[in-house]
Amino acid sequence: MNTMRDDAHKIIDEAIRAVLPEKAVERALSSMHVKNGAVIVAIGKAAWNMAKAAKDLLGAKISDGIVLTKYHHSKGDIEGLKIFEAGHPLPDQNSVIGTSKILELVSQLTSDDEVVFLVSGGGSALFEKPLHGITLNEIVSVTDQLLSCAASIVEINTVRKHLSAVKGGRFASHCNGAKIHAVVLSDVIGDPLNAIASGPAYPDQSTSEEALAIIKKYDLQITENIRKALQEETPKAVENCDTVITGSVSELCEAAAATASALNYHPHILSSFVENEAKEIGHFFGSIAKELKKVNKSQYTFQTPCAIILGGETVVHLKGKGKGGRNQELVLAAAIEIENIDDVIIFSLGSDGTDGPTDAAGGIVDGQSISRMKSACKNPALMLDNNDAYHALEASNDLVITGPTGTNVNDLIVLLCR
Amino acid sequence: MNTMRDDAHKIIDEAIRAVLPEKAVERALSSMHVKNGAVIVAIGKAAWNMAKAAKDLLGAKISDGIVLTKYHHSKGDIEGLKIFEAGHPLPDQNSVIGTSKILELVSQLTSDDEVVFLVSGGGSALFEKPLHGITLNEIVSVTDQLLSCAASIVEINTVRKHLSAVKGGRFASHCNGAKIHAVVLSDVIGDPLNAIASGPAYPDQSTSEEALAIIKKYDLQITENIRKALQEETPKAVENCDTVITGSVSELCEAAAATASALNYHPHILSSFVENEAKEIGHFFGSIAKELKKVNKSQYTFQTPCAIILGGETVVHLKGKGKGGRNQELVLAAAIEIENIDDVIIFSLGSDGTDGPTDAAGGIVDGQSISRMKSACKNPALMLDNNDAYHALEASNDLVITGPTGTNVNDLIVLLCR
Repeated sequence: MNTMRDDAHKIIDEAIRAVLPEKAVERALSSMHVKNGAVIVAIGKAAWNMAKAAKDLLGAKISDGIVLTKYHHSKGDIEGLKIFEAGHPLPDQNSVIGTSKILELVSQLTSDDEVVFLVSGGGSALFEKPLHGITLNEIVSVTDQLLSCAASIVEINTVRKHLSAVKGGRFASHCNGAKIHAVVLSDVIGDPLNAIASGPAYPDQSTSEEALAIIKKYDLQITENIRKALQEETPKAVENCDTVITGSVSELCEAAAATASALNYHPHILSSFVENEAKEIGHFFGSIAKELKKVNKSQYTFQTPCAIILGGETVVHLKGKGKGGRNQELVLAAAIEIENIDDVIIFSLGSDGTDGPTDAAGGIVDGQSISRMKSACKNPALMLDNNDAYHALEASNDLVITGPTGTNVNDLIVLLCR
Repeated sequence: MNTMRDDAHKIIDEAIRAVLPEKAVERALSSMHVKNGAVIVAIGKAAWNMAKAAKDLLGAKISDGIVLTKYHHSKGDIEGLKIFEAGHPLPDQNSVIGTSKILELVSQLTSDDEVVFLVSGGGSALFEKPLHGITLNEIVSVTDQLLSCAASIVEINTVRKHLSAVKGGRFASHCNGAKIHAVVLSDVIGDPLNAIASGPAYPDQSTSEEALAIIKKYDLQITENIRKALQEETPKAVENCDTVITGSVSELCEAAAATASALNYHPHILSSFVENEAKEIGHFFGSIAKELKKVNKSQYTFQTPCAIILGGETVVHLKGKGKGGRNQELVLAAAIEIENIDDVIIFSLGSDGTDGPTDAAGGIVDGQSISRMKSACKNPALMLDNNDAYHALEASNDLVITGPTGTNVNDLIVLLCR
């Protein structure tokens, strides 16, 4: 029989495999009918992998295309496509150059043509060209001012969309009515299409009026050109685009559930929208474990063996000076709650293979994790307080180390109970 | 058709009814065979109600008995029983007087006799007599010192049990081998019998050695009498006692689930061990609601209509100066997350009918709660930050006000989704 740790690692492997850009693009394109002569436009940190997968799949149907990704994220030539690299997380002049090349390409299209538009995280910085009449420096200055007066992310995005030639649906307007097949690799919880890469082919809900009100609210210093740009409205409808979201945290959870089911655990996805404090989720998972292990279990509780699954991205409010990441902190908090409970495993990891400033993707704990830490002379509760989960989990041999996975669709958090 | 709010209130009513002391005692005693001539000993805040229910049920079988409850918690005479009232949350001289009367009563018993021992929350303070040779003042002084040096609750209880003539299994030792039928109304999460009312008829796991080590660890100033008392060991086995736990938070959740099921919601008890930060649970329930309302719902998610049920007791770390309670804070946080989501209701309340220093038991929110608050010119996010949930929920007409319910088995937290 497999150990539960074996099962956990199988679930991790299969879930991540399902959301690799190649797999995700393959799944999405299988439901789309792409015409001969289509062009590929790929933007974001996963642009190269997405474009490679699309080109491999669509082959001779593709007449031309451009990949715009982050520095050092290209992995070589892709036949028939041009590759540009640019700045991230802050846009730079190469962002503007790559974006201009893309706009040149699509400006030659007609309503008989098609675009395979491959979108991944990081697209907001990489795919950027200031609206005519303003400069990137002017945009950076406004953004800096908004950040320093603690404007909300919604407010910052409202202003930035109105200053961009491609964000907030404007890219779609440049395509002359060519049909856009958008394949979106989602790294934002809830898959909000207006937020992923700032929604270049998605109608913008924010208005020019709102953008100007934000400038007024924070009393920002802006140039006359910026003020003029903000008065131009973004598209409120985009008719020429079909979108498939793929490789999202939902698919990560779904693949984990399917794998757990194949391993004979009853899977339950509680939510793929989790944004709680990391240790609170660890603590909560501990309380689920206690319920599952109660002597007189209710008929209304999950039947074991079961896999309770969460997706999303937890947060850590740092108090201490230790080493760790949100996933490691979550499982350390869980370990304290499930101390000495048998046949329970809790794991949490970032699907990109990284968790905080560490070489681990996350952690995996059981009822004996705490005693292993104590045997190594560690104090788990103090280490949790000091945000030092890495060293606690290192001592109990409970770190999950995958290396970079090549995808980035938030975190997977699972409780297995037999 | 019922509105979801009607359903929610029905669930609240039925769940609380199931854990009223009368019902709980009735259920527990139905599984016990009590001999003629048994005596009743009832301690705790619910002692009067429990004793009344037991006397009504067992009638002439009861030969004698004593009720020891908090001031103003007696509701009149109960035929054949003596009633004492004493201090809570701090024990006073009347605690010692009442406890002495109980010990006098049981000291006359033999191994042919039986005791119906009814235990409820508050028993630690109400049922207290210092071990021979020490005074209540000496105990209070040690407890004060432990509190001021931030000793853990486990440490405080270890010391207090060793200083008491009745805690930590010692009450059972006074009964001369008479059979004790203990009926425990649990107000402690996880129903730890050694903790409820300090476990008067339950073997003590803590040792004299541990108690002395705690005195040393915190360098406490104690009298010679206290030191002597700490050297006496508490019982490590209690042979003459059967215990039934009743009216616990598990039964609260179970009754909520059964009622929800009768109203055609699929009920799921996630956990009856919840001790998280209140607003984190509210936020998390919001993320479950989003999953249930997702366009392409997973087959592995709960089928709607459903009732997701939690029991336990959340906590609030106060930052602001507003008015509220943990249940009100929880639902305000949830309301922010479910804004504009239809057919979802989230409620949370204290089963005793009180929540923080307010006249409400908790709150009940839906997708329109936030807009009702905003219409009343309230800022829900700011009010949550200021721990001012009461005034936010008052504005949206979302307070749950039950008045004192007569029971106290932690909180019930439910999400209904159609």
